Amino acid sequence: MKNIQSFIVLFALFSGNIAVAQTTDKVVEDFKPSSVNQPGKEYPQVNSERRVRIRIEAPQANKVQLDIGAVKYDLTKDENGVWMGESAPQDEGFHYYQLNIDGASVPDPGTRYFYGAGRWGSGIEIPAHDQEFYALKKVSHGLVSENRYYSDITESWRRCFVYTPPGYHSGKNKRYPVLYLQHGSFEDETGWLNQGHANLILDNLIADNKAVPMIIVMDNGYAFKPQEEQVVSTPTKPAMVFEEVLINEVIPMIDNKFRTINDREQRAIAGLSMGANQTMRIIMNNLDKFAYYGGFSGTANYPGTEEIDVKAFLDGAFADGKTVSERIKVLWLRVGTKEPEVFPKSIGAFRDMLDNQGIDHVYYESKGTVHEWLTWRRSLHDFVPRLFR
Amino acid sequence: MKNIQSFIVLFALFSGNIAVAQTTDKVVEDFKPSSVNQPGKEYPQVNSERRVRIRIEAPQANKVQLDIGAVKYDLTKDENGVWMGESAPQDEGFHYYQLNIDGASVPDPGTRYFYGAGRWGSGIEIPAHDQEFYALKKVSHGLVSENRYYSDITESWRRCFVYTPPGYHSGKNKRYPVLYLQHGSFEDETGWLNQGHANLILDNLIADNKAVPMIIVMDNGYAFKPQEEQVVSTPTKPAMVFEEVLINEVIPMIDNKFRTINDREQRAIAGLSMGANQTMRIIMNNLDKFAYYGGFSGTANYPGTEEIDVKAFLDGAFADGKTVSERIKVLWLRVGTKEPEVFPKSIGAFRDMLDNQGIDHVYYESKGTVHEWLTWRRSLHDFVPRLFR
Repeated sequence: MKNIQSFIVLFALFSGNIAVAQTTDKVVEDFKPSSVNQPGKEYPQVNSERRVRIRIEAPQANKVQLDIGAVKYDLTKDENGVWMGESAPQDEGFHYYQLNIDGASVPDPGTRYFYGAGRWGSGIEIPAHDQEFYALKKVSHGLVSENRYYSDITESWRRCFVYTPPGYHSGKNKRYPVLYLQHGSFEDETGWLNQGHANLILDNLIADNKAVPMIIVMDNGYAFKPQEEQVVSTPTKPAMVFEEVLINEVIPMIDNKFRTINDREQRAIAGLSMGANQTMRIIMNNLDKFAYYGGFSGTANYPGTEEIDVKAFLDGAFADGKTVSERIKVLWLRVGTKEPEVFPKSIGAFRDMLDNQGIDHVYYESKGTVHEWLTWRRSLHDFVPRLFR
Repeated sequence: MKNIQSFIVLFALFSGNIAVAQTTDKVVEDFKPSSVNQPGKEYPQVNSERRVRIRIEAPQANKVQLDIGAVKYDLTKDENGVWMGESAPQDEGFHYYQLNIDGASVPDPGTRYFYGAGRWGSGIEIPAHDQEFYALKKVSHGLVSENRYYSDITESWRRCFVYTPPGYHSGKNKRYPVLYLQHGSFEDETGWLNQGHANLILDNLIADNKAVPMIIVMDNGYAFKPQEEQVVSTPTKPAMVFEEVLINEVIPMIDNKFRTINDREQRAIAGLSMGANQTMRIIMNNLDKFAYYGGFSGTANYPGTEEIDVKAFLDGAFADGKTVSERIKVLWLRVGTKEPEVFPKSIGAFRDMLDNQGIDHVYYESKGTVHEWLTWRRSLHDFVPRLFR
């Protein structure tokens, strides 16, 4: 036991990113409950330094840790059996985390739960300086509806969420363009709503007349044929049969059930990370269906960072640069400045290929954000105003 | 430690309802993953005896328990630090539960999470013999939409979910009756969907031509004026300002946003437990707004079991029995046969009053169910076919 503790102290000294914050005098005491706590729950809390403070009763436990941002922070027990402690300052935005109680990795009972990192578990919101663009405001709100459908391709029940803009339900005849918007790996169709606030971003943009009112469809990017092993996809093997489900089942269902404009110039597709990779393959295979593409923290050459062979890449889909430029009205890419190197490098290689082919594109960087939801909220907020003009 | 163990064994012998099932040879080994587990999670499991089996890694823990149905079951650790164990047989239907790890009460990382008992936490489904009526089937499905609205009464953002029946979205002019459906205490607007499967119950009834296609609105029964302390309501003090919010804000919003029939004879109200109590008060104060009432495991005299003074009860709302009979087209009550005595007894006192006043009502019992969601699923399934005929 002593050896383990020594190791941890040693590791902390060298890595510089394990903090046992309650032993220092540097913590600013202006903690407030996280905005995504369960109703009435005081903890977890966040302070102005962007530290996360945890509180949990576990009188008989030997060791309790906060596990956030790939770092485990030891908590300290008081005489009442209550464990408390803080993380080092976190990046602004949304983070998944968990508690570790005597070796059990469990959700914090103080938070609401989110699907990401392959599980429903705890999340925390570190207020961002630009959070107003995804805030719940007194503007007209669209509706989000849950759509269950049986897929004959996967032979299973699936689900998508559909955002309809303000005015859709009271209007009777007006028809709308559609954005198909995909989550990343180890996430699902709930991510763009619960973590991404796609509905609020659209409500605010539409209220400010900065975006065309549109329908957004958020489906689950994991789709397998029934006889195939339900392995979790990797970014390099992302497609599975999602393309088939989307093109042959979801789009016809949406065009039938909602007042859409069934036209390639009124249909966009975008995704984040694995979803960026998937949707790039889908648009290049289906240029008759989509005219706008958004790739948030991902491209179809990921994780490759080397120069792209345009003849081989996606079966030569970008080989005729002139046609691609004509067919794709907006090709939009973004990455967070703090993302792991593989993301900017693979996106960089992709952009070089676009430049060589003479294909216009829009490229933005999200300042100070990692491979997380604040990068993608900002991406959606910049991408959507460019659609259907 | 030995004393504690002796005490537990002693208590188990006397109470008869603490089981450390893995020490017996009686457990039937046909466990299957619970239907409400997280994707890909093998545990918790349920067997044909309706026992719940838990598995969790917690190598450094001293004690891990399954806490379900007000009983705590000790789990046993194996040489790999994995804790496992089973509960005694549970009633069929849906149950909230949690794990206790060295004194910390936490959600099971294997399940999806539900809001009930005042928190988001674990739940498990014990398959019921009549589960087909709320199963997801290949029938036309309605849509459930999330509606956020700002309440000027509570000065806060609130939310309701709205079920629109199959055909609503493709139809352009057809208008529908509306059922307002409320959850119980320590639950919220998500309960009737996540635990109650109200949408699936309606989809199946409508597909069988057993119910009139209708809209269902599920709001949050907790509503407080901003200056008032946000105390959690008790069943004897349930109203808060929810009635005001529902009548003055929610109903006008729904009638404006959706294609409703704005007429008392095309509007019903029902609720479970605290919601039954609230909605009975609301219909009796607003007979110009509603013509149908469903009380699931609750009445407005709860927890009173004594004879009702009809002149005093709800300010004499039932004193003129003839008028009540004429105005309320269906007055429907139900309780589970295994619910705590106060529920059948208070409902019994209410029924006696109705009989004395010559007020017709429908009364059913749900066989073998407690004060839980299977009772209320069955209630909705019996109540809804009687509406709007």
